[in-house]
Amino acid sequence: MKKQIAVLRGDGIGKEVTDAAIAVLETIGRRFDHEFEWKHGLIGGGAIDETGQPLPDETIQLCEQSDAILLGAVGGPKWDQNPSHLRPEKGLLQIRKHFELSVNLRPVKAYQSLLAVSPLKEDVAKDVDMVIVRELTGGLYFGEPSHHDDKNAVDTLLYSREEIERVVVHAFELAKQRRGKLNSVDKANVLESSKLWRKVVEDVAKRYPEVEYEHTIVDAAAMKLITYPSTFDVIVTENMFGDILSDEASVITGSLGMLPSASLRVDGFGLYEPVHGSAPDIAGQNIANPVGAILSAAMMLRSSFGLFEEADAIEAAVQKILEAGYCTSEFKNIGREVLSTTDMTEKIVNEL
Amino acid sequence: MKKQIAVLRGDGIGKEVTDAAIAVLETIGRRFDHEFEWKHGLIGGGAIDETGQPLPDETIQLCEQSDAILLGAVGGPKWDQNPSHLRPEKGLLQIRKHFELSVNLRPVKAYQSLLAVSPLKEDVAKDVDMVIVRELTGGLYFGEPSHHDDKNAVDTLLYSREEIERVVVHAFELAKQRRGKLNSVDKANVLESSKLWRKVVEDVAKRYPEVEYEHTIVDAAAMKLITYPSTFDVIVTENMFGDILSDEASVITGSLGMLPSASLRVDGFGLYEPVHGSAPDIAGQNIANPVGAILSAAMMLRSSFGLFEEADAIEAAVQKILEAGYCTSEFKNIGREVLSTTDMTEKIVNEL
Ligand SMILES: CC(C)[C@H](C(=O)O)[C@@H](O)C(=O)O
Ligand SMILES: CC(C)[C@H](C(=O)O)[C@@H](O)C(=O)O
Repeated sequence: MKKQIAVLRGDGIGKEVTDAAIAVLETIGRRFDHEFEWKHGLIGGGAIDETGQPLPDETIQLCEQSDAILLGAVGGPKWDQNPSHLRPEKGLLQIRKHFELSVNLRPVKAYQSLLAVSPLKEDVAKDVDMVIVRELTGGLYFGEPSHHDDKNAVDTLLYSREEIERVVVHAFELAKQRRGKLNSVDKANVLESSKLWRKVVEDVAKRYPEVEYEHTIVDAAAMKLITYPSTFDVIVTENMFGDILSDEASVITGSLGMLPSASLRVDGFGLYEPVHGSAPDIAGQNIANPVGAILSAAMMLRSSFGLFEEADAIEAAVQKILEAGYCTSEFKNIGREVLSTTDMTEKIVNEL
Repeated sequence: MKKQIAVLRGDGIGKEVTDAAIAVLETIGRRFDHEFEWKHGLIGGGAIDETGQPLPDETIQLCEQSDAILLGAVGGPKWDQNPSHLRPEKGLLQIRKHFELSVNLRPVKAYQSLLAVSPLKEDVAKDVDMVIVRELTGGLYFGEPSHHDDKNAVDTLLYSREEIERVVVHAFELAKQRRGKLNSVDKANVLESSKLWRKVVEDVAKRYPEVEYEHTIVDAAAMKLITYPSTFDVIVTENMFGDILSDEASVITGSLGMLPSASLRVDGFGLYEPVHGSAPDIAGQNIANPVGAILSAAMMLRSSFGLFEEADAIEAAVQKILEAGYCTSEFKNIGREVLSTTDMTEKIVNEL
């Protein structure tokens, strides 16, 4: 198989961890006889510095010609005071919208060997294995009117049945392939958009009798993610609830640096990036955890290219290296061997 | 001092815990020579059954004639399928709006003696002592347009400078009396309403040079509440973020049943209720934890009546009884003596 991949390394540690993911994919290419062609583009702060835009047109074109997008991370203190159309995050919002990346997948899994760093008690966190499916291109982040002056502000939460349905269908499909459990999170006791959301879920559910589903109010979900996190299998929710809940979920196992994400268009095209940010404080020191980026690459193989065996191979290699007692700098003081970004990547590559 | 208090016991365990709070306030009245007059009214499911409305007019009148409102909890499976204007929660939303209860205070404090039941590691949860200040009558829960049909839905997030300012000022005042730290939570990298929010915070901050303040993005706040909860002193945020974050925060110490809340009008009039819900599954069994309601009564004394010594006395009595090894049924199996609702109340009353 031959694939062209747009590489947007972005800012801070985004660069280092994307290089790690590329190294792993190159190894997969050699072992399984695929050819990956890398086309680098700018996004975020670096793009603002060089082109005056967080998502330059050349980057959009490059992505349009590619089969998938691999992204590092964007942002940093240098651009924090910029007006909002010149903020690195704007590049993320624009690329999601431009490519209709409406389904965001955020798997959260506990690694037994790293539970010591979880803020939760080990027996609460130990069996966590969930995927949060977040609607990514609708709702409050994109609705009009949206403006403010010195006296008043308005944002608008809009959803159409179609927007809800495509992400809900994706979530039911995923639940069917996993443990068959789905939690739809809304605020249907208050919000009109949540009432439509709930109706769509009930309609779609009829086509998936094998999936056991439940509605959970967002505030109750925020509690249950902490008290009983291992009871969740698949969670599906709208954009802003998903933003908050997926970040909440990402810290419960203590392995934020390990977490991947995928943002998908309905046809399978997608953008893949680690959950962690650009971490400017540790950038360039070769100590960042490359696992989130590497597992994002695995998600790319599976979701955009249908390369299941290859994706499984990466995940198994990561699992093995972690179980063998290796980790990166954020896990120091738990009696495991701390590796640099490149050494960790090399271990995983050798395991493959 | 003579005060008239509207008592809205509501549904489920709301009744039992409100009775407990009344017993404690009666004791305070005797000891400190105050007279409390109780006027009972209906709200929630019980009100729907008897009057066809979650917040009957008589209840509004009763509250208007009172100096404060003591509320139990509302809701239950019996009313879960009702259309939304006939849902128990609607009564809550209406009473908040009618009385302009725009400032919601949610203190969260760890009890050393109960850390065993926290989902968090004891050293993460042990020093937690924060207050979440939530804007309660604006934002997405009340903005128009707000409607849905079978194809589309809209909700509207509106804020005026005045609405933001009154809650932000309250939060700065509170921070000044506490440890002098304030986190304002918003999503200013995306939402226009958050940009206005942030401007107002910066303006108000100039009048409080003694308070150290910080802006935190809502998704980062959802993480930090779990990873470093004890770093928070006062958190201030808009209605929906506050809904989610305050419920998230309420479970980190394991003492949900102990948590009180206050919903205040700018002149000090207020509604006081425990954070926990109506818990229909354990209602009527005399096993509910009355401490959340009792501490809500203490907040009433302090915030609406200015009775500081009396409020302190209640809090000290509760602390003492918990430290002496007593608890209610939700804390079984941690080697402490489990009391019924009425026995726990009696212990606290005797301590006073
Ligand atoms: C940077 C920001 C716009 C973005 C979002 O809120 O969607 C981020 O928090 C995320 O979750 O990917
Ligand atoms: C019942 C509901 C309307 C309410 C809210 O969301 O405000 C509740 O969750 C709360 O936090 O008091």
